[in-house]
Amino acid sequence: MQQHLSSVEVDADSVIRAITPALDASRHKGQAGKIAVIGGCREYTGAPYFAAISALKIGADLSHVFCTKDAAPVIKSYSPELIVHPILEESYSVREEDKKIISGKVLAEVDKWMERFDCLVIGPGLGRDPFLLDCVSEIMRHARQSNVPIVIDGDGLFLVTNNLDLVSGYALAVLTPNVNEYKRLVQKVLSSEVDDVDGTQQLVSLSKQIGGVTVLKKGKSDLISDGATVKSVSIYGSLRRCGGQGDILSGSVAVFLSWARQAASDPNSNLSSKNPTVLGCIAGSAILRKAASLAFSNKKRSTVTGDIIECLGKSVEDVCPAC
Amino acid sequence: MQQHLSSVEVDADSVIRAITPALDASRHKGQAGKIAVIGGCREYTGAPYFAAISALKIGADLSHVFCTKDAAPVIKSYSPELIVHPILEESYSVREEDKKIISGKVLAEVDKWMERFDCLVIGPGLGRDPFLLDCVSEIMRHARQSNVPIVIDGDGLFLVTNNLDLVSGYALAVLTPNVNEYKRLVQKVLSSEVDDVDGTQQLVSLSKQIGGVTVLKKGKSDLISDGATVKSVSIYGSLRRCGGQGDILSGSVAVFLSWARQAASDPNSNLSSKNPTVLGCIAGSAILRKAASLAFSNKKRSTVTGDIIECLGKSVEDVCPAC
Repeated sequence: MQQHLSSVEVDADSVIRAITPALDASRHKGQAGKIAVIGGCREYTGAPYFAAISALKIGADLSHVFCTKDAAPVIKSYSPELIVHPILEESYSVREEDKKIISGKVLAEVDKWMERFDCLVIGPGLGRDPFLLDCVSEIMRHARQSNVPIVIDGDGLFLVTNNLDLVSGYALAVLTPNVNEYKRLVQKVLSSEVDDVDGTQQLVSLSKQIGGVTVLKKGKSDLISDGATVKSVSIYGSLRRCGGQGDILSGSVAVFLSWARQAASDPNSNLSSKNPTVLGCIAGSAILRKAASLAFSNKKRSTVTGDIIECLGKSVEDVCPAC
Repeated sequence: MQQHLSSVEVDADSVIRAITPALDASRHKGQAGKIAVIGGCREYTGAPYFAAISALKIGADLSHVFCTKDAAPVIKSYSPELIVHPILEESYSVREEDKKIISGKVLAEVDKWMERFDCLVIGPGLGRDPFLLDCVSEIMRHARQSNVPIVIDGDGLFLVTNNLDLVSGYALAVLTPNVNEYKRLVQKVLSSEVDDVDGTQQLVSLSKQIGGVTVLKKGKSDLISDGATVKSVSIYGSLRRCGGQGDILSGSVAVFLSWARQAASDPNSNLSSKNPTVLGCIAGSAILRKAASLAFSNKKRSTVTGDIIECLGKSVEDVCPAC
């Protein structure tokens, strides 16, 4: 009988402690992380806000959102802490003959900032407008050229599943699919259905097939693979399934991934052999679960995503006190 | 060997107590300070809000914001406490041939209010649009003609560094540069690089060279000079470096500076020999640090600028109880 590959439950707390930077008087604004979320359109404004504010609450210094002109005033109004750029355009507001010029302008705006970002989150509330997704594809190509890590969720996964070359072979990309998004990804990449018996092996194959892109498969346990290993995070979270928790995860993974890269670059660190995208996923998954559990213990069935975000700080502090 | 000029750590609490006005039944609305922030454009709305709301939380009576038409509804939505004037314009919304008329209208709007303000804060979230900055240059000239003090931060420093005549020799101007802004200022004014060995002497030279404009150099210790003396504020703040703390500082300095001028005008006061801009900088720096420390002790790594603003009141009260 074939032996099934099993995932290893990781000591997430140790990972969080190893990658979270010490607060130090010599550090200046920006060094604890500059994150940008690409998302937010006429229809969706909550998701990019959740992702961007989560990044700040985990401990990033600056959090930007690049969204459509319609979405910007609303996202800005949720919080003065975010820097919101109203630059994306949807087809309904663009004439066919202007598409090339506008697409160029969008890219130029993002490029002005690109090198400053430690990580992009692509997808929360992005929508599926074809012209907008074309622009976002270009943004992903530029991020890749600049070696900026990318966490992809929501409609970003819809885009990537249909255009695998956008991420294929890019070691600094992370996909964070839920059950349905994972199903489409498996169908597209492996031309098969989800294997409920040997899911771990299938996840490894999937990641390998996209050239070692890290996949965080969300579920009862979160499973994380970069094609080489599979890690599992099963810390108890909450049974509440309110929408928006995936956005918290993507913003959190972006910060922890940035911190893991920074920590690994320290010559005294023993993290250099570890994949920072996998470490970022482990930490993000664990902190979301802890925060969801804290929020639920207080708010029970009425827990909403904002309540969980308010618990992110305590979740990090419990594992890794600031001083 | 040359003796280095050293800064003197000031007793900031005494300064705060000396300049903060007593609450008195005979005083009416406006006497505790009317502040205006010039800032807020399509891209930035959080910064002017932080500066303006901080002024109120320190204890000013009225706080205005003059911003672009795009930014106004968003800034209004952050708080009903602020008076927000949607009057500035960016190039993209102005035809070349209309610039002169529109610039005249903008100035007329600000002039209607100018004499009522105790201090302007110029720069938070101003952006760098050339037409908008031209209008703001004119506003600065009018403020100067009316003897209204000006605190300059952020993009206002970008403007002033490239147009030193806007502030040169104006004793009621304060510049609040961070590390990078200070570097550009030193390069422009002194045609040299930042002196890490004898930084105090260089700060005095810088301030002298701009005709005694007060410079608050932000850093591990805040250093304040008006070309005659150098004061240092080193009270412990927080190691969290989230964006927006500079906006709190500019709004706070504006209020304390106004109070210091008012206090010095009292014939029984012994403040008449002191420079009110320097006193305002000392008090603003100290209160921000105390508030940042209070916020951090509660929120740790998840501290954001709004959390610090919520601690401004307690910071003032701890030093100088209202009654």
